[in-house]
Amino acid sequence: MSDDTAQLLGPLRERGRWRADRCPIARSLGVVGTRSAMLIMREAYYGTTRFDDFAGRVGITEAVAAARLRELTGAGLLQRVPYQDPGQRTRHEYRLTEMGRDLCPAVLALFEWGSKYLYGSGGAPVTLQHADCGADIHVTTTCSNGHAVPLRDITLARA
Amino acid sequence: MSDDTAQLLGPLRERGRWRADRCPIARSLGVVGTRSAMLIMREAYYGTTRFDDFAGRVGITEAVAAARLRELTGAGLLQRVPYQDPGQRTRHEYRLTEMGRDLCPAVLALFEWGSKYLYGSGGAPVTLQHADCGADIHVTTTCSNGHAVPLRDITLARA
Repeated sequence: MSDDTAQLLGPLRERGRWRADRCPIARSLGVVGTRSAMLIMREAYYGTTRFDDFAGRVGITEAVAAARLRELTGAGLLQRVPYQDPGQRTRHEYRLTEMGRDLCPAVLALFEWGSKYLYGSGGAPVTLQHADCGADIHVTTTCSNGHAVPLRDITLARA
Repeated sequence: MSDDTAQLLGPLRERGRWRADRCPIARSLGVVGTRSAMLIMREAYYGTTRFDDFAGRVGITEAVAAARLRELTGAGLLQRVPYQDPGQRTRHEYRLTEMGRDLCPAVLALFEWGSKYLYGSGGAPVTLQHADCGADIHVTTTCSNGHAVPLRDITLARA
């Protein structure tokens, strides 16, 4: 076994002896584990709020967009809010909730990883920076005491 | 438009005028955008290396496990290495590469998000801590200068 893996503690030490049937990663993937769900969240982070725009900008059919937006709203990542353009009937837009915003590190981690590994010498066509200081954005694994924590120093334990 | 979204800069300012057809998030999802790929990576982080263990511990068929392991190895997240148990024929195990380890924040971000939102009052059954100091693990969005960066202070720009 490689040393560069997480450390399983206590009754979790023998990975062959327990089932990850209540795993938070698996549970999250049950909500946002499709490409279209993740890309709808990307669009929400980029400011998209309207049904037609989600479908068009993600590049999915209206049926898929409707299903995903219904799931993401039902799960609590987006909130459906009425709006009315002048002379038009009332429509609904989709706004990020705190729960939806809190998924941001997961989506941005995919941005960073893809940018690093999937573009060859040319590099990715877009970059993320901190508005205040202009420095590049990174998604990092740290502990509450502020230490950067590599995978091998992470422990998994029963709650 | 909500103020709590990323800021699109320069030619990206009008989201309706460009297509995200070379998006790093979408490209990453092309590699690890299935539930089974993500859960195989989880298992690799927990120390799993052998084919049968990946299939059993993720809870997928051997056919799906074989397809995902082939894709993840082909993409460079895992490396196929021969091993031989005494008296057995040579087999192969799958070990994390640096590219595979670098995906860790994306997977752990799903762990943290799911733990926070998808368990009700009982909380998640497992937790992640820093081995050295025991503090909880968090996946955070920061800039190279060390500032914590909320979504609204992130800018997206052409490279």
